[in-house]
Formats: sequence, C-alpha cells, structure tokens
Amino acid sequence: MILTVTLNAALDVTYRVDALEPGAVHRIAGITERAGGKGVNVARILHALGEQVLATGLTGGATGTRLRDLLAADGVPEAFMPISGESRRTVVVSADDGATTGFWEPGPPVTSDEWQGFLARYRALLAGVEVVALCGSLPPGVPVDAYATLIGYARTAGVATVLDADGDPLRYGVPAGPDVVKPNAAELSGLHSSLLGRRVTVGNLDEALAAANATRKLGAASVVASLGRAGLLAVTGDGVWHARTSEQLAGNPTGAGDACVAALARGRLTGGRPWPDQLRDAVALGGASVRSPVAGEVCPTDHQRLRAAVTIEEMS
Amino acid sequence: MILTVTLNAALDVTYRVDALEPGAVHRIAGITERAGGKGVNVARILHALGEQVLATGLTGGATGTRLRDLLAADGVPEAFMPISGESRRTVVVSADDGATTGFWEPGPPVTSDEWQGFLARYRALLAGVEVVALCGSLPPGVPVDAYATLIGYARTAGVATVLDADGDPLRYGVPAGPDVVKPNAAELSGLHSSLLGRRVTVGNLDEALAAANATRKLGAASVVASLGRAGLLAVTGDGVWHARTSEQLAGNPTGAGDACVAALARGRLTGGRPWPDQLRDAVALGGASVRSPVAGEVCPTDHQRLRAAVTIEEMS
Repeated sequence: MILTVTLNAALDVTYRVDALEPGAVHRIAGITERAGGKGVNVARILHALGEQVLATGLTGGATGTRLRDLLAADGVPEAFMPISGESRRTVVVSADDGATTGFWEPGPPVTSDEWQGFLARYRALLAGVEVVALCGSLPPGVPVDAYATLIGYARTAGVATVLDADGDPLRYGVPAGPDVVKPNAAELSGLHSSLLGRRVTVGNLDEALAAANATRKLGAASVVASLGRAGLLAVTGDGVWHARTSEQLAGNPTGAGDACVAALARGRLTGGRPWPDQLRDAVALGGASVRSPVAGEVCPTDHQRLRAAVTIEEMS
Repeated sequence: MILTVTLNAALDVTYRVDALEPGAVHRIAGITERAGGKGVNVARILHALGEQVLATGLTGGATGTRLRDLLAADGVPEAFMPISGESRRTVVVSADDGATTGFWEPGPPVTSDEWQGFLARYRALLAGVEVVALCGSLPPGVPVDAYATLIGYARTAGVATVLDADGDPLRYGVPAGPDVVKPNAAELSGLHSSLLGRRVTVGNLDEALAAANATRKLGAASVVASLGRAGLLAVTGDGVWHARTSEQLAGNPTGAGDACVAALARGRLTGGRPWPDQLRDAVALGGASVRSPVAGEVCPTDHQRLRAAVTIEEMS
C-alpha cells in the first residue's frame, strides 16, 4: 500500500475558452472540476495502475467536500483530515490553441491543533503502508519543516518516502533523509542555490548531476531530477542513470512530474524493480501524462508504447 | 420597497495579479469574494442609498450559500429561492495595470418545478413592493420569456418594472410592457437588429433614438439607453432627454449599468422625481460606480459631486 500526502489539496477547475484575451470577458461554456494537488494526482495514477493507494492530507469547507466527492467518484480511497479553513481552487484557463493559463489560490490557514491532529492520523496510517509520497506546497500555518517531521515518522515506522516539494519545504525536508527526492530543474536550481549561497541554474546534465550530488550529501538517499524534454537523471547509491524518450511529446506538461512520482513510489514497494526499470516506467508514465489533456491521468496504451521508446544510459 | 430579481446570481471572485500573462501560472495572493449578478449589485446600491430593498432570485449549492452569506454581511435583505443546482462564479482577474479579465461560468440548471416555485414566491413578494428591477441573464431551464411572465405579474399587481437584460430574454420581455428598459448600446443594437431582421449598430445618438423608438413601439413605456461616455438617452412618453457628465471618468465600467438601474428603480417609487432629476441621479451614480474599484459600490461623495457635473438636454 502507498500513502500519498497532499497538505495543500485543491479543487482543480478548468475553463475552456476559444482564446484567452486579457481585458475581455469570457463566457465559459464548459467547466471541468476534479480533485487536485500533486499527491492527489499521484494517488489517481497509482489507482489507475492497479496499485493499492490511500490519499490523505488536509481539506476543508465546501470546496474540500467537493474535492473528496470527486476523488470518491474516481474510485480513489481517501482519508483526508477535515480542517476549518476552505480548501483552495486552482483555476486553469485552457484555450483552443493549447495554451493553459493558471490561477493558483492560496491555501487555507491551518491551526496548530489541526496540524497536530493530522500528525496523529498520519502516524496511524503509516502502520498499514510500505511507501509514502509527500507532495506539493504547504498551506499557511503548517510548519516549514513539515516534510522533515513526516519523513522522520516514516523512517521510524520503516516506511519508504518519496518527496516532491519546492522551496523551503524541500530544503527543510531533504536533511530528514527521504529515500527519493524528485525535483524538477527549477526546484533543483533553487535548492542548490540555497546550499551554495549563490544563484545557480540547472541547465544541463552536468549541472543537474552536481546539484543532485549536493542534494544527496544534504540527506536524500536518491535524487531523481525531472528535466523536461531532457528526461530524468537518477543519482542513487547504486549508480547514476539518464533516462529519456526519443518521442517528441506535445501536450500538457502539468502532471508529468506527478506521474514520475507515482512510478518512483511504486518502485519503493517490496520486490520493487531495479532502478533502470523504475526509470523506464517513470519516463513512460510522465510521457503518457503529457499526452493526456488532464493532469493526473494516463492512457495505458500510451504508457505501454512509450516504455519501448525509453532509452536508459548508465553514467560513469 | 424595491424588489430586485437576479435569476442567474453569481459569486463574484476577484483574483489580483501583477499582470495577466497567457500561458503562465499565477499564484494569487489576494482573493475577494462578493455576492454578484446585476440585480444583486442594484440591491446593494439601493441599500447604500438608504432605500428599502429586497433581493430575490435563484441560488443553489455551497456557492449559493456563500453568496447569501456575503449579501447578509453587506446588510442587504434577501429572499433568494434555493435550487438544487450550484450557483455560478464569475471570476475576474484584476491586474495592477488596471486591466480586468472576466471568466463567466454558465448558470446552474433550473428545473420546471423550481421555476414554478420561484413564480409563486415572486407573486407573494410583489404584494409588498412598489417597484421591481428584473436584471441579467437567465440560467438554463428558465423559459426564455421569463421576464415577460414576471412583468405580467407585476403589472397585474400594480408594481412598476425596470428591465435590464440582453438578447432573447430582452426581446421576449419588452412586448410585456415594462415601465423602463435600460439597454446599453450593444444590447440596443441586438434588439433593433432582431426587430429589423438585419444587422444594425447603435453608434450615435440618432441611431440610439431610432432603436429606442422601435423598442417603445414593441412595448416598453420608456427606454433609457446607457451609451458609455456618451451618457444616457431617455426616450419616454413625457419627452426625450440626453444626460451626460463633462467629467472624464477613468475606472471600472462594470456595474455602471447596475447603478443606472438603481437610480431608475427608485425613480419609479411613489413621489418619484421628474425624468431630468432621475437621469441626473442615474448618470451621477453610474459615474461614481465607474470610479469605484468594486462593481455595485458607489462613494456618496463622488455621487453628490458628480450630480453637479451632469448636463441634461431635452431633445426636440
């Protein structure tokens, strides 16, 4: 069983428009709503892959209720903890020319008691899982070192951890020793910059390798960096691999990172496959996600076809 | 007492951004929510002016509850009828350079029983009012001739009517004989085009006069056309007037039409002032609304100052 944690879950709302014209009024014909937030997307993908998964995190208000109803409709088991604040929405305006414009509302305030309540629930849930995926931003009120705390409890419980975060939550989380960290290039740049105390950019494989090594030194057992079209760079205790697909994938990149996290999370299950296999799965799932119009969904046919198109290179 | 009817009420949500960049993700720092829809804005303005007002219409779901809570917080009495559908949101992205971009969700579906239930409530409410303002679009399921029905009941009850609508709801409403119709130039163009069976544009006072005369012939007792910076053209049984302000008003034009409707509605109250006074009030309120950052709000100081800047010309 894999547990996904989404502390800043969101109701994803998509408005379809012919074209986005700043300054104009757009009458929306079609609205799509779905449960969102990185960990929720990871849970949905794992569920679609036939893995046993449970989604937890914080939700509140009418928006939170709607989010949980939609997740239930998708068949994804959940154990979100209710909070008094109102869950946020993430509004995406999707134009017919393919451009997507996002408006991310701030998360709901979380009280100290609510956070303590969540920690108790999380520790109880850990008893029944093998892997936990910790994903996304933190709403206001949740301590900046929240992921460090959650990783610490998992480690004590003998549960593997995959961390997908950005900024301070990532920086505070890595020293707690997650099994895998999955930053993208921008997140890795930010982390490496803060470690070095000067602004650096991860623009190529060498720079990604240097930043990933620094991240391992800080505490992560393995780092899998998602570098967009350049694929994945995995820096692990067993070796370093570069995995990519030769297919040029057009589509919606939102959610490709979540698909990658899903692959890495199931790679941590007992009897999990060796790194090259996990990376092949991660690239193929990410690619299938890019081809899907909706974040957090993958077409099984795309997934299988793309697996064959992935090349894995072991780096010395 | 004035009754405002908002069949397609909305929760107005404003996202403040530095700049709207199509294709980018915007993290929203500040969200403002308020009860919206044309008739709701009219009610809020009338309440602020010290008039006795009651807002009715249809609201549903968590969004409808939020809308009613916000209206109550504004102190505006309401008697909305609950429906099973979820009230819509109107999302406005307000950029620091002053550009506002709107995303209008479609209204909730309304069942036949709900519409009949509303008609019963409306007829009961008519017993206690002198004027009813019928404002805005119709949600799906409400008959296209809804305003004709509502005007008919008002006429039977001896209640004056002000109609502010567009497209088919306007075209079907006018023959029922509203006391005042308040179209803007685009709405008047559309109505006149449908009457003539060919596309005409209301671009100047002469064209507005021709279209207003045709609208009166169709059934409206008076027509007050709001022509943006060109002011108001009132075509009535007592005469024709052109009212405008010499002040160049910069700001948010959303809601200026609602302010104008508020002035015309209170002009229909017993002991109401003569047309030139009503038009002065309407132009000044509309101007004060333009200067307000929020639709449906007017600054009393702006309102009073602008009254003095309005010129009224009687047209032969």
